[in-house]
Amino acid sequence: MSSQFGQAFRISTWGESHGGGVGVVIDGCPPRLELSEADIQRDLDRRRPGQSEIVTPRDEADQCRILSGVFQGQTLGTPICVAVMNKDARPESYREMETAYRPSHADYTYQAKYGIRNWQGGGRASARETIGRVAAAAVAKKALTQLAPGLEIVAYVKTIHEIKAYVNPETVTMEEVESNIVRCPDPAKAQEMIDFIKQVRSEGDSVGGTIECVIRGTPAGWGEPVFDKIEADLAKAMMSLPATKGFEVGSGFAGTRLRGSEHNDAFVMESGKVRTRTNLSGGIQGGITNGEPIFLRIAFKPTATIFKPQETVTVTGEATELQARGRHDPCVLPRAVPMVEAMAALVLVDHALRQRGQVG
Amino acid sequence: MSSQFGQAFRISTWGESHGGGVGVVIDGCPPRLELSEADIQRDLDRRRPGQSEIVTPRDEADQCRILSGVFQGQTLGTPICVAVMNKDARPESYREMETAYRPSHADYTYQAKYGIRNWQGGGRASARETIGRVAAAAVAKKALTQLAPGLEIVAYVKTIHEIKAYVNPETVTMEEVESNIVRCPDPAKAQEMIDFIKQVRSEGDSVGGTIECVIRGTPAGWGEPVFDKIEADLAKAMMSLPATKGFEVGSGFAGTRLRGSEHNDAFVMESGKVRTRTNLSGGIQGGITNGEPIFLRIAFKPTATIFKPQETVTVTGEATELQARGRHDPCVLPRAVPMVEAMAALVLVDHALRQRGQVG
Amino acid sequence: MSSQFGQAFRISTWGESHGGGVGVVIDGCPPRLELSEADIQRDLDRRRPGQSEIVTPRDEADQCRILSGVFQGQTLGTPICVAVMNKDARPESYREMETAYRPSHADYTYQAKYGIRNWQGGGRASARETIGRVAAAAVAKKALTQLAPGLEIVAYVKTIHEIKAYVNPETVTMEEVESNIVRCPDPAKAQEMIDFIKQVRSEGDSVGGTIECVIRGTPAGWGEPVFDKIEADLAKAMMSLPATKGFEVGSGFAGTRLRGSEHNDAFVMESGKVRTRTNLSGGIQGGITNGEPIFLRIAFKPTATIFKPQETVTVTGEATELQARGRHDPCVLPRAVPMVEAMAALVLVDHALRQRGQVG
Amino acid sequence: MSSQFGQAFRISTWGESHGGGVGVVIDGCPPRLELSEADIQRDLDRRRPGQSEIVTPRDEADQCRILSGVFQGQTLGTPICVAVMNKDARPESYREMETAYRPSHADYTYQAKYGIRNWQGGGRASARETIGRVAAAAVAKKALTQLAPGLEIVAYVKTIHEIKAYVNPETVTMEEVESNIVRCPDPAKAQEMIDFIKQVRSEGDSVGGTIECVIRGTPAGWGEPVFDKIEADLAKAMMSLPATKGFEVGSGFAGTRLRGSEHNDAFVMESGKVRTRTNLSGGIQGGITNGEPIFLRIAFKPTATIFKPQETVTVTGEATELQARGRHDPCVLPRAVPMVEAMAALVLVDHALRQRGQVG
Repeated sequence: MSSQFGQAFRISTWGESHGGGVGVVIDGCPPRLELSEADIQRDLDRRRPGQSEIVTPRDEADQCRILSGVFQGQTLGTPICVAVMNKDARPESYREMETAYRPSHADYTYQAKYGIRNWQGGGRASARETIGRVAAAAVAKKALTQLAPGLEIVAYVKTIHEIKAYVNPETVTMEEVESNIVRCPDPAKAQEMIDFIKQVRSEGDSVGGTIECVIRGTPAGWGEPVFDKIEADLAKAMMSLPATKGFEVGSGFAGTRLRGSEHNDAFVMESGKVRTRTNLSGGIQGGITNGEPIFLRIAFKPTATIFKPQETVTVTGEATELQARGRHDPCVLPRAVPMVEAMAALVLVDHALRQRGQVG
Repeated sequence: MSSQFGQAFRISTWGESHGGGVGVVIDGCPPRLELSEADIQRDLDRRRPGQSEIVTPRDEADQCRILSGVFQGQTLGTPICVAVMNKDARPESYREMETAYRPSHADYTYQAKYGIRNWQGGGRASARETIGRVAAAAVAKKALTQLAPGLEIVAYVKTIHEIKAYVNPETVTMEEVESNIVRCPDPAKAQEMIDFIKQVRSEGDSVGGTIECVIRGTPAGWGEPVFDKIEADLAKAMMSLPATKGFEVGSGFAGTRLRGSEHNDAFVMESGKVRTRTNLSGGIQGGITNGEPIFLRIAFKPTATIFKPQETVTVTGEATELQARGRHDPCVLPRAVPMVEAMAALVLVDHALRQRGQVG
Repeated sequence: MSSQFGQAFRISTWGESHGGGVGVVIDGCPPRLELSEADIQRDLDRRRPGQSEIVTPRDEADQCRILSGVFQGQTLGTPICVAVMNKDARPESYREMETAYRPSHADYTYQAKYGIRNWQGGGRASARETIGRVAAAAVAKKALTQLAPGLEIVAYVKTIHEIKAYVNPETVTMEEVESNIVRCPDPAKAQEMIDFIKQVRSEGDSVGGTIECVIRGTPAGWGEPVFDKIEADLAKAMMSLPATKGFEVGSGFAGTRLRGSEHNDAFVMESGKVRTRTNLSGGIQGGITNGEPIFLRIAFKPTATIFKPQETVTVTGEATELQARGRHDPCVLPRAVPMVEAMAALVLVDHALRQRGQVG
Repeated sequence: MSSQFGQAFRISTWGESHGGGVGVVIDGCPPRLELSEADIQRDLDRRRPGQSEIVTPRDEADQCRILSGVFQGQTLGTPICVAVMNKDARPESYREMETAYRPSHADYTYQAKYGIRNWQGGGRASARETIGRVAAAAVAKKALTQLAPGLEIVAYVKTIHEIKAYVNPETVTMEEVESNIVRCPDPAKAQEMIDFIKQVRSEGDSVGGTIECVIRGTPAGWGEPVFDKIEADLAKAMMSLPATKGFEVGSGFAGTRLRGSEHNDAFVMESGKVRTRTNLSGGIQGGITNGEPIFLRIAFKPTATIFKPQETVTVTGEATELQARGRHDPCVLPRAVPMVEAMAALVLVDHALRQRGQVG
């Protein structure tokens, strides 16, 4: 059950980077949503390689096909299978991976776990696996449009290494995010980030950063304590993405440096609605949304693949040295932005349906 | 399904702070483990109120009873129900909560979600809920002793507000943690923390901090990509605890400021075993343990209950002011240490059994 | 996960016949249902031993207590724990079971599975386990009253050994069922059955039969193909009850002797509603309710406990002979009627909530 | 979650009869099993249309493709996706189904449930859906070969209408079953059945029957009481197949006519192993296998599609008449034999892995 996510809107992803293809099956999608392959392709294009000069130059079209669950342009309520066939890649690029473990990749752990691994391009541990998530999330967003009209999910690059953008999460738009190739809505910092990523790449190195995600317009009442608190599910969702090392909601780690009298969000009435004067809670209290914006920050480590020689061991336990060849992302964050958005959408739609199921 | 956790070792917790009692049902526990109420009580005593001068003075014995699943001192493989009956508390202390929402508590969100709430003492949102988790984890630890002899889970207070302890996670012991009432294994900083908590309490305020948790001795191969990666399940586990706002594994947010060449953990052979020279991965690669120690850090916000007047609204939407009365923790961290340990144990036992099921 | 049932309205039962007690935790119950211990006790009393002269004379009050999830007489939406404490029984009655396996009981298989068993009174395999199911179903029925007003579940004894009752399932009422101690709404046959059961008991033997269950008033649209078809979940529910050996829906096994032209249910309009002229489908088509009454029949084998010497083996593999002592049911069917009803209610409420979740 | 089956070996099927294709994703398969498309194709060919003169003459090759989870001929432990693309069918054959509900089909109930349906060829309710199940079961059988060497599952047609075969379930082989097109291992009765099916078809009518399934060679100890008893999971598995109306295990409904003294299976030692002298329990006691052969019988109703005019209503509620055209099975049983086998294999592998997970 390792490759399933969600309770009510449950997705099952499948596929290795080098094999027949990758995809997803969605079970529990509400019926009668308008859905086309173009709806899904739009988001897949935002995560695909080759889309800009700061991501891997590998050129994969990642063309999706809906194989089931849709009839005459509408969802049927039955399982939706979306597949992206793999194009034949360059397996020869990966020969060294057959015999040695790449540092800080999953080669060794997959071998230790299963006693076998698809060593071509990372196999199941490749970020190519996230195609299924992004495809499913495109469907989730369609459902959310009906379940919570006005709900918006906007993710963006907040920091790259030491470069930090200034962004107003109350107002930031996806258009601003998409206005540059690093997906940072602070234009000046975006340019700095782009230049820095290029420089790091030219040095054969890689770099990480943080993505912030804001969710505006959720109704109060989503979240299933005590274990499926909405921040717990969001944390799991984000920490299941490749390369993530940290997760924060609301005040996050910085909130540990405040006193209760500074941190508490006073309640006030506003246009007949219960609101909070501040929002250090980040839109969630007791694991349930309170209607205020939800703020998340996710830490992504620098890409493990670098073009410098690295010390490692072979599958038979001998010391050796590896140096990456081929085409890789010097920084995963620009392509991770739609992945973060996708995981947020999958959590939200699941909780929306669960709430409707139990409470009506 | 909000109150269930785990796939193979599945727990179902139940209970409000003021009601018949609280407890847990464990389904899927391996048979023939030695288990007594004393085994469970030991951990419950570490999380109970009234245990020291820096936690709430409320005096609850929290005496547990095993109602099923154990016969002649051994687990049967059938569901284990552990219950702690509530003693009659002081409902009159909570009268104001019936009519107004406490800031940064779950009063408003529970009402918004369910249209009803048990307003006595926080109900299901009370930290009293964690008794079931800690009880279940005492059983999980028994199972882990067999499944992974030598495995150790040690959690401790790493920071309180701005005070930061120096701790060597490779060697820290539970004895060091338990040697003082704040559960910080750096004695000098522990004293500072205790003094600071007392001062904050005297001001009617509260304070937060971070807990670090180290897991030593896991075999390589635990974790279920792509969604049930072990760090994803740990993140969910920790973020489901009351008052948590952030989670890190390995290098965490600080890792975003390193380059790949600095962050990657070189593989080396050591006594015939694959090891890593550094451990910025924090013992997990591709969502699967690699046998190195796992490091986690969890952010806890300052307790929402403070003894200062706060602005809020009534259930009928009128502005009002609330000031806590009664007995409360000025800082949740000392009592949260066994909760963090508990959640780690629950994740580990679940993954151990899942790995055994699929791979043998 | 052996002791959990349901997806949206999920119950976790616990308890052995001789131990602290038995009970259930319900997760996912809709909030704001009126619920009292008396509501639950009513159904528990219908399944308890000692209720009539044809069931076991063991006198257990089976008094339930709601430990959580209810506040001021209403469900909270949080887990509801219901417990029935065991009174100290006569363990000495079971000494022989420690050393030998009772034929057609679960003694041997539990030992083979877990390497341990609670040999006192059947342990987890005792029908006492069904207390948790019946208690949960009392809550389920409360929810169904809101989710599908007018829905009725009526179960009754249809056959005992060769004695077959004549019952009109379209009109039979629970009052008719409860009018006699064998729970058969055909008064003449009921008396025959009672006399026969008494005679069989006097011979130290036991007897089985079939229970029919009719569900009237479901809306069209419940059931989750392709695996959680409503008849599939009903089959699982019934076949999980102790002593069941067969399950039928609609035309059942007899339907295999008809041709398609005889078996098909023609559609007709009736008061603006789609109805079927006949109902050999038994209210279900393609795994989904069509609004017509659902008919089920469940086969119960004769009670395994008999007062005659039987050939068996000891736990150490030696041939021996066993003869039951103590107090037992000569026929489980009268007490199984509320169990069948209970399992039907649990399936229906789960599907009602799932349908509401996905489709609204 | 309607299209998922299994806990540890979990399958997710997808696909409509007329759409992109049908298939399955298997999550939790043990790694390092030899697996090829030919292994799967063998079973798919046994369920495909057009295979003999007594099934539908529709000629679909149903060629499968493994899209993930297998590398160099071995399972990886990652999700296995198997797909069969649909060839373009004759949608014009189904035009009438757009506007009217076929009697005893799922047209009306799907519409009532989802407010939409794929009316081409039955959509998700078509037996074509079982391709995913049969494909997954081919993988399950590979796993069972390792988990329980010697385990055998043999299903066969036991009755067609009033014609009943004589079969010894202790010794019947798959070769005997496959020796004729009706899949009945009693050659004389098989011929009678074939002749009868042809006659019924020539009359434009259809016919049902029962399939018996015997499972030999399970170890003692599989099954997860109290809800996931192995007969409960088998019942659900079988009752989720299209056209099933009844399920029996062991003595079944006939067992209700025996007394306890006749029905109980005495234990005896045989070659150092606990055996039963008789096997009315059908290999299962208390929901757990006892090592004796498991016997199941499943009732299949006559095919709903018949070539006679039938009374029905249109989607707008007007009375009309329908008469099937095109190519259909006059009797589903020959093609249902591999489906029954498949469902048995899926239940067994799931329980084998669950038992290994919990007990080791």
